[in-house]
Amino acid sequence: MDVVTMVTGQLVALQHSEMLVSLCINIVVSVAGAGAVVRTIPAVSEMFINAGLFGRDLCKQDRTTKVPESMGMVSGSVYLIIMFLFLGVPFGQHFIQPSTPFPHAAFAEYLTSLLSICCMLFLGFADDVLNLKWRYKLVLPTLASLPLLMVYYINLGSTTVVVPKPLRQWMGMTLNIGLLYYIYMSMLAVFCTNAINIYAGINGLECGQAIVIGASIVVFNLVELGGYQAESHYFSLCIIIPFIASSLGLFYYNRYPARAFVGDTFTYFAGMTFAVVAIIGHFSKTVLLFFLPQIFNFLYSVPQLFHFVPCPRHRLPTYNQRIDKLEPSVAKFKVKEIKKPLLIVLRLLANLGFVNFEESLGEDGEMCQVNNLTLINLMLIKLGPQHESSLTNKLLMLQVLSSGLAFFIRYPLADMFF
Amino acid sequence: MDVVTMVTGQLVALQHSEMLVSLCINIVVSVAGAGAVVRTIPAVSEMFINAGLFGRDLCKQDRTTKVPESMGMVSGSVYLIIMFLFLGVPFGQHFIQPSTPFPHAAFAEYLTSLLSICCMLFLGFADDVLNLKWRYKLVLPTLASLPLLMVYYINLGSTTVVVPKPLRQWMGMTLNIGLLYYIYMSMLAVFCTNAINIYAGINGLECGQAIVIGASIVVFNLVELGGYQAESHYFSLCIIIPFIASSLGLFYYNRYPARAFVGDTFTYFAGMTFAVVAIIGHFSKTVLLFFLPQIFNFLYSVPQLFHFVPCPRHRLPTYNQRIDKLEPSVAKFKVKEIKKPLLIVLRLLANLGFVNFEESLGEDGEMCQVNNLTLINLMLIKLGPQHESSLTNKLLMLQVLSSGLAFFIRYPLADMFF
Repeated sequence: MDVVTMVTGQLVALQHSEMLVSLCINIVVSVAGAGAVVRTIPAVSEMFINAGLFGRDLCKQDRTTKVPESMGMVSGSVYLIIMFLFLGVPFGQHFIQPSTPFPHAAFAEYLTSLLSICCMLFLGFADDVLNLKWRYKLVLPTLASLPLLMVYYINLGSTTVVVPKPLRQWMGMTLNIGLLYYIYMSMLAVFCTNAINIYAGINGLECGQAIVIGASIVVFNLVELGGYQAESHYFSLCIIIPFIASSLGLFYYNRYPARAFVGDTFTYFAGMTFAVVAIIGHFSKTVLLFFLPQIFNFLYSVPQLFHFVPCPRHRLPTYNQRIDKLEPSVAKFKVKEIKKPLLIVLRLLANLGFVNFEESLGEDGEMCQVNNLTLINLMLIKLGPQHESSLTNKLLMLQVLSSGLAFFIRYPLADMFF
Repeated sequence: MDVVTMVTGQLVALQHSEMLVSLCINIVVSVAGAGAVVRTIPAVSEMFINAGLFGRDLCKQDRTTKVPESMGMVSGSVYLIIMFLFLGVPFGQHFIQPSTPFPHAAFAEYLTSLLSICCMLFLGFADDVLNLKWRYKLVLPTLASLPLLMVYYINLGSTTVVVPKPLRQWMGMTLNIGLLYYIYMSMLAVFCTNAINIYAGINGLECGQAIVIGASIVVFNLVELGGYQAESHYFSLCIIIPFIASSLGLFYYNRYPARAFVGDTFTYFAGMTFAVVAIIGHFSKTVLLFFLPQIFNFLYSVPQLFHFVPCPRHRLPTYNQRIDKLEPSVAKFKVKEIKKPLLIVLRLLANLGFVNFEESLGEDGEMCQVNNLTLINLMLIKLGPQHESSLTNKLLMLQVLSSGLAFFIRYPLADMFF
């Protein structure tokens, strides 16, 4: 019996050492990938601008410079290339010793992850070029997540959720929610892609938040790597580390003052990458915890997203040239334009300090205005006008603090309830 | 023993009946896909034109109309959606009876095929938007084929080629070419994507040739479905039938007079689809036989592709408005511009009737002209000026005849040599 334990222990150690080697190689190719992104972006910027893929920075004094748009296409393509090259590494031992049974299930997880990510990269780029309608943005990520769900099913993924302690007397210890779990995972893909997409607009924020979320996932994976689902967390690390590296390369050009915009290409690509590790890694609820600012921003945006409150084309903060700072932007409309209950909600939120809502404006006193409902504007209301780079830093700091809160919820707090 | 034979026979029959059901479902979703392409293209044409993705038809009297470009993006996206929805079907029995071992190897083949196809669709669209440089067009398909080669390796794909009879006394019956075989497969992906891309330019040709090649592959698969590699040919059918259907939808708008151009998106997507079935289906040499006109066109184009002979930006036939027909287009240059040996080759080809080569032109007698070296122009030299739709039909007929020749080479002729 002792011999068996010893052999098992050695095998586990061997596996861990292989994982370690794989992770080291992963980090090396990731660093090379970051370098490739940094080198490629200036080389292709002109090509993007010529193709009409450029934007003007609305939060700057000089609004004439053409800033290349959709640069997530570069970081995404480099990411795929890194992953294609890396793909051989985690399965290396099976190439050298073909006698051991090949881990087909794990390999399918890699393939399907890359397939979903590639689809979203394609969709994001198509969106940047073609300005797709909203319905496509909801339907296509759902379809792109189908192979992912299939692999989850095939690999006998659990659809059981643990019931919180207070509810257990009625519902038992665990609850198998079956099909609902698949719908939840599919919606997760749609949510992740769009949540990052709408929490955007100032230099470095899209990229920065993705890097912070990615780093939080890495920390979580490292903590859990010794646990009983080590394989899943190892898989997640292999997917996320190259993503962080390629995003860092992009961040270098996207931070203030931006020399490149990331485009929907990046936000969709990033969102799908997080959804992929959440689903295949079996920690979708934890990933959602790292999305706290995005969730808040989404909920806060709902009145405008669903047009209960008029929504201007851009909801970016307003640039105040005199003080070189950003101020909250506003939506102006007639009081009659919005429904009565919503008016009451707005007044309540204004009293609670969540919105700036002014009534009885204009000559006839019928106009009113509310700040555009984004977390960026809310931050400006709370802190006063901010310089763009300082605002991005503070929002990223908020993202880091939220991740701290997420870890608190995930560990000490969750232990109380589960 | 009799019982064993009977049971085995029944199992084989059962498997075949399951294949038949899968194929029927495949055909049904394919027809739905073709309908979706036909409905979607007019709905999104405006969106493409607004995004600057349009071209003008140079072979028409009216060159002002904007024809939407890159419509292969629609057929390609619909193809991916069909395949995502269909993916559950061939593995249906394993969902209903999870007790049977799941065929992971076959599933990985589907996933990696879709991954490679999705990558090329993305690359093709990026090429249409950004006008990528040639080096990307060669490097990226190679990278996109990496996962495909990995799956080929994992599934213990053979790297052995059968030696033709006359050579067997020296080399033996079979020859394992190992790594060379992988290089060959990787180059196949590059060749297929680019060969279709350069055999293009008149309404309906890109789509039409892809449909003929696809149909030839289907016929070949059906013939071989009873053989010992039935699984591979069944897989190929599942991949190719939806491709043909989505391409037919596109052909409806791309045929003369074109209301949509297919773009590099389509040619890359089509080329990779053929490469995928060739590699995973283990019949790459037969697929190459269906590419005879493309191979001829490529070899014929080599002097211009590698700039031994000056190559104008467009090598399309010239439109003769007076007779409403197409005539061969020419490249004019000074005799001194090309190397002496090439001059001799051109004169020889002119004597053999393969090119129209005229010398001693211009005031100083130093100019010369040669038809642009494409199969389309050669056809016009041989047949005289043709109406565009008639020319496309004749080239497609040539493609059909080539497939006939390919079958002749593959069966009676190959039996003599192998």
